[in-house]
Amino acid sequence: MSDSFLQALEALSIKPTAHVNHAATASPQEWRDALAQDASTPAGFEPIKVLVFKPKTAKTATPVPVVVIARDQTETSSSALGKKLNLKELRLASEDLLSEFFALDKNSLSPLAINQSIFPKIVTVLDSSIESSNAPFAVHALSSSATVFLTGKEIASYITSLENEETKVQVIDFESLKSDGGVAAGVTAKPTVKEKDDAKIEGAVQIAIGVRKDGDFSAWYQNVLLKADMLEYYNVSGCYILKPWSYSIWEEIQEWFNKRIKALGVQNSYFPMFVSSKVLEREKDHIEGFSPEVAWVTRAGNSELEEPIAIRPTSETVMYPYYAKWIKSHRDLPLKLNQWNSVVRWEFKHPQPFLRTREFLWQEGHTAFLTKAESDKEVMDILDLYRRVYEELLAVPVIPGVKSEKEKFAGGLYTTTVEGFVPTTGRGIQGGTSHSLGQNFSRPEMFNIVVEDPNDPTGQGKTYVWQNSWGLSTRTIGVMTMIHGDDQGLVLPPRVASIQVVVVPCGITAKTSDADRAKINGACEELAQTLIKADIRAKADLRDGYTPGYKFNDWEQKGVPLRLEIGPNDLAKQQTVAVRRHSGAKTPVPLADIGSTVSGLLETVQKDMYTKAKKEYDSRLIEVTRWEDVVPTLNNKCVAVIPWCEVEACEDDIKERSAQVSGPTDERAPSAGAKSLCIPFDQARWTPIVPGQTKCPACGQDAKRWTMFGRSY
Amino acid sequence: MSDSFLQALEALSIKPTAHVNHAATASPQEWRDALAQDASTPAGFEPIKVLVFKPKTAKTATPVPVVVIARDQTETSSSALGKKLNLKELRLASEDLLSEFFALDKNSLSPLAINQSIFPKIVTVLDSSIESSNAPFAVHALSSSATVFLTGKEIASYITSLENEETKVQVIDFESLKSDGGVAAGVTAKPTVKEKDDAKIEGAVQIAIGVRKDGDFSAWYQNVLLKADMLEYYNVSGCYILKPWSYSIWEEIQEWFNKRIKALGVQNSYFPMFVSSKVLEREKDHIEGFSPEVAWVTRAGNSELEEPIAIRPTSETVMYPYYAKWIKSHRDLPLKLNQWNSVVRWEFKHPQPFLRTREFLWQEGHTAFLTKAESDKEVMDILDLYRRVYEELLAVPVIPGVKSEKEKFAGGLYTTTVEGFVPTTGRGIQGGTSHSLGQNFSRPEMFNIVVEDPNDPTGQGKTYVWQNSWGLSTRTIGVMTMIHGDDQGLVLPPRVASIQVVVVPCGITAKTSDADRAKINGACEELAQTLIKADIRAKADLRDGYTPGYKFNDWEQKGVPLRLEIGPNDLAKQQTVAVRRHSGAKTPVPLADIGSTVSGLLETVQKDMYTKAKKEYDSRLIEVTRWEDVVPTLNNKCVAVIPWCEVEACEDDIKERSAQVSGPTDERAPSAGAKSLCIPFDQARWTPIVPGQTKCPACGQDAKRWTMFGRSY
Repeated sequence: MSDSFLQALEALSIKPTAHVNHAATASPQEWRDALAQDASTPAGFEPIKVLVFKPKTAKTATPVPVVVIARDQTETSSSALGKKLNLKELRLASEDLLSEFFALDKNSLSPLAINQSIFPKIVTVLDSSIESSNAPFAVHALSSSATVFLTGKEIASYITSLENEETKVQVIDFESLKSDGGVAAGVTAKPTVKEKDDAKIEGAVQIAIGVRKDGDFSAWYQNVLLKADMLEYYNVSGCYILKPWSYSIWEEIQEWFNKRIKALGVQNSYFPMFVSSKVLEREKDHIEGFSPEVAWVTRAGNSELEEPIAIRPTSETVMYPYYAKWIKSHRDLPLKLNQWNSVVRWEFKHPQPFLRTREFLWQEGHTAFLTKAESDKEVMDILDLYRRVYEELLAVPVIPGVKSEKEKFAGGLYTTTVEGFVPTTGRGIQGGTSHSLGQNFSRPEMFNIVVEDPNDPTGQGKTYVWQNSWGLSTRTIGVMTMIHGDDQGLVLPPRVASIQVVVVPCGITAKTSDADRAKINGACEELAQTLIKADIRAKADLRDGYTPGYKFNDWEQKGVPLRLEIGPNDLAKQQTVAVRRHSGAKTPVPLADIGSTVSGLLETVQKDMYTKAKKEYDSRLIEVTRWEDVVPTLNNKCVAVIPWCEVEACEDDIKERSAQVSGPTDERAPSAGAKSLCIPFDQARWTPIVPGQTKCPACGQDAKRWTMFGRSY
Repeated sequence: MSDSFLQALEALSIKPTAHVNHAATASPQEWRDALAQDASTPAGFEPIKVLVFKPKTAKTATPVPVVVIARDQTETSSSALGKKLNLKELRLASEDLLSEFFALDKNSLSPLAINQSIFPKIVTVLDSSIESSNAPFAVHALSSSATVFLTGKEIASYITSLENEETKVQVIDFESLKSDGGVAAGVTAKPTVKEKDDAKIEGAVQIAIGVRKDGDFSAWYQNVLLKADMLEYYNVSGCYILKPWSYSIWEEIQEWFNKRIKALGVQNSYFPMFVSSKVLEREKDHIEGFSPEVAWVTRAGNSELEEPIAIRPTSETVMYPYYAKWIKSHRDLPLKLNQWNSVVRWEFKHPQPFLRTREFLWQEGHTAFLTKAESDKEVMDILDLYRRVYEELLAVPVIPGVKSEKEKFAGGLYTTTVEGFVPTTGRGIQGGTSHSLGQNFSRPEMFNIVVEDPNDPTGQGKTYVWQNSWGLSTRTIGVMTMIHGDDQGLVLPPRVASIQVVVVPCGITAKTSDADRAKINGACEELAQTLIKADIRAKADLRDGYTPGYKFNDWEQKGVPLRLEIGPNDLAKQQTVAVRRHSGAKTPVPLADIGSTVSGLLETVQKDMYTKAKKEYDSRLIEVTRWEDVVPTLNNKCVAVIPWCEVEACEDDIKERSAQVSGPTDERAPSAGAKSLCIPFDQARWTPIVPGQTKCPACGQDAKRWTMFGRSY
């Protein structure tokens, strides 16, 4: 029976583009993820949701369920739909009703479950935006663990093939239904409007972001990354392909950061990715933080290894046995090594591109000093470079501070951090950390990294070296995307954009002569070349067969900071129209001296993006001194900055109480408790704490420092 | 009993610096390798060899064995030793004699096996260069699987503690013994000369390369890498730590190559290190080449994975499912991606730093084209970049050519290569390969990467894309080391040296006034700064407490291309003395306009190094047309360039016959058979092949092209 729909499709000459088997899925997100991992899944697919409503009827009457087939992102208001269909109090149907009608659970529901025997017994509603689309949609193959891909047209064609004299498909435009408040707007009895076979428009539909940032943030984030060509899902869960559009951002960060750490005397090197279990487990506190996530190699070819070998989750225990070997005298200090590599943390939590991935790219610096003073200074020097990567390259404001004891790096002395914030979700995000390890790893029972102390007057004194480690990862790219992206897609800050300026020819119509066309295209290419000579990363988009509108949309999605348009009128005036991606602002700019004008414009854009994001972040930092204000502040998508006692038990308590109180009032708002994000170094921006007088709002003990508490990634 | 020596050492207040257990070893090389893998092994250690000789005696007499304790690299000529000791026909003792005297096999022999009961029954000879050394030596802890480290002085102290009135240790200077031809030179009855406690001289001894390049090449290579601070052995076998001195060379190569591939339209990206087994095994021919070496992750934390996941040995099968997804139209072509990463090939053959390692760094480019012509062109463009990396950056001559069918990349269409050559061993080495994959990976039964053919007149034609892949690894660094290094250590070509010029203050004695000392040091620092301003990577070595000689040696070992010396006389003449590392040539150079002089000198050095290496390579390429000349050519450490039939069976035959014939005439010369290294593109340099007339010297069939056959890495 399960394949009967295939015969029905075949009868209509419909052949699904792919048929994918996957793990059973229990939510739209799981389904997306499972599909994303299969290479045969078409790019830019959208899942189809099938909702079954039961109208209020007399208890004795047989209910006629309303079955809605819609895009996953279409808002299908049951009240508006009820008004439209003139049915009272539509409620989501129970599982019992589903099994009765479809013999399926809700995770397996599919338009294909509607067949000739079921169709007459239900009201079938089809989302009008599906009806005429050539884009690929995922529908369950009557199972939560199997999926086929059909175009919107094919789905419509299948459903309408079930129509008879009595029963027709209801095609509804949910978008206009929403704006109408559910009044009138006419139910189309069956699909009639045929989409024009226009690849450009179809293309435009296919590449639209499709979800609002402040609607379903998680789907928005995923769509932006896919449609801006930043990454591709990979068939090993939790791993992603970094495409050139995102990898080039990482290259910009690498180049900038390398130059500056080399000036601090840091040298690059490469240590193996493998760690023996014996060495890995040397530092107990440290490894406790990582061991549940360590990936183990146990076999090579067909041979079992004598003992399993770990893939580094970080390299402290890889490197420090050799530091002990190399550092024999204070003359060997400081030792400052860095490496750019990938590390593996096999997390079982839900993965998220760039933010939580099983393999990720980063740099890890590991340094050793004779004195604490030197190591303390370096911790801050590096942290300031991290701040500058965010603020100067990515236009992302961050707050430098120190982590609480609970949140610090396992096995270290103290951890400094640059803390970012995603206003749309109201969650803090750790941007990069610079750790003082103190002498915890150099102690004799650990790696025993010891030298004679040249400052000891007896000449007999030994000192264990002071160590730091610090890391910045490709998470930077995720944070940047979340902060600047909008409903049109990605927005790139000019300094990290691999294309800073795109030049698009405009005003070319069917009537334009070949000579004029060539002239405009020529002017665009010339402009791009002029900009390239002025060290601006520019490109002319002279693709044939695409409208300017398509190109605008394409480059907007990809986040190119500046678009320059040239049409016949511009050419006559020797000007170009500059459109800024982040604000949409349009300005005509003379072609004379265009290199320096555009350089200036890009700097302005960079600055404006930062200023805007900074203003937003600042507005979300709320000074809170009464406990009862904490949870409302969090629920208001803000950070609660409280005068905190810095007691670990109090932090646990805050987390628990803020989680309980917030409750499931809004299913989209994470009801997680707040944790301390950081204790900002800049305490002066808050009302002064009066020792012995200012109290911690959570526990009533004496407050020490203003501390940021918030929900977080 | 096995720990009795520890008590004896303790009685002398000698505490071994480390006590290492390892796998049983059956040769000095295995022993070195086993030790190198243990983190507690001290840097720069040398193994001690113990040789037992039996002099010719009357059959009835009890033999008095001669036991020689020497550095592994000391030449201990038995005939010279016999003359010296006035003993006839010293022969290496049988295993039986060893067990009789020491109750040990020869792999466990150790100075520590000589105890008070054995000492009187033997003649004990101590290598004089051990006697006064503070350097660490490895001695077997009476077992081939355990080692302790003692300084030379400690070994001497232990041995002399066994002396009595009757029997003394014979301390012999084998170096002078050799030059004396074994005549006179005086046997020292017991250690008398005490080394001065001079850290500088001791240091100098400790850091000397210690082995001649044309002596024990393998030990020389290992010593050069360790002592030039290029790498460190790691405690996972087959993995090595790339220290900044070598990693910086890789960074130079990356920067140079990145710039040029980007100009060809190649973009960098990053694909995950993990491959699912299903995907890995898609291409049978291809994976057959790799599967015995694939490392498998089977566990994460404490959870067994549902199915094992491979670590990429190369990324064809990682990437191409996504190429199939991304390439939907000829407009998506060409697709040109590259990544810099590490790959894992868990080889069970003897590992060798940079040349054969279980994890290595490389770049892998993967490109797809509409036409064969485009892909063919790129294969050659990339190969030419590889040639230039070797020739222009590393000053290493290579020969571009195509691989035989037998030697080509598994699963590809044809493989081009730049072939290097190590004259000291007479072995060829593959430098980098640029493969045409043809349509083998794009075929429908493989990854099915297909587009509509825009050139097909019917508009119906489909075409499978033409693909290339190409890779260059850190092997480059190993080849460079082997080609240019000498008995003083590493020799770096200026373009890849992280320090190109070192400035060393000279002529400072105890009598030099503080003012003069400061003046000379100041002049050195100023000179370094002047050079840095002229974009030369320069450094002044102003370390206190080290003699100029120590510094010369130190920087020579590390291969810095140019040394500038400034002493009081130089200062008076406003000059500096320039010493070239590769030739030792010394020239005074005026300080005026020093930046451009030194730039010019560095370019000269770069050119001279290449020219010298090229001349050497050329002299080893021998045109061979008779089979009987092939093996002698190989044994003469040359490449036999033969007019070859290009038949695979003939290649197998050549390998077999050249291996058999060469035989074990010289235990150091690898008696491996010859394989085809490449068919050079430049055929014009050889005598023209006359079709149908010139015959393959191996099989007598018609020759096609001149082909390089040689032993190889």
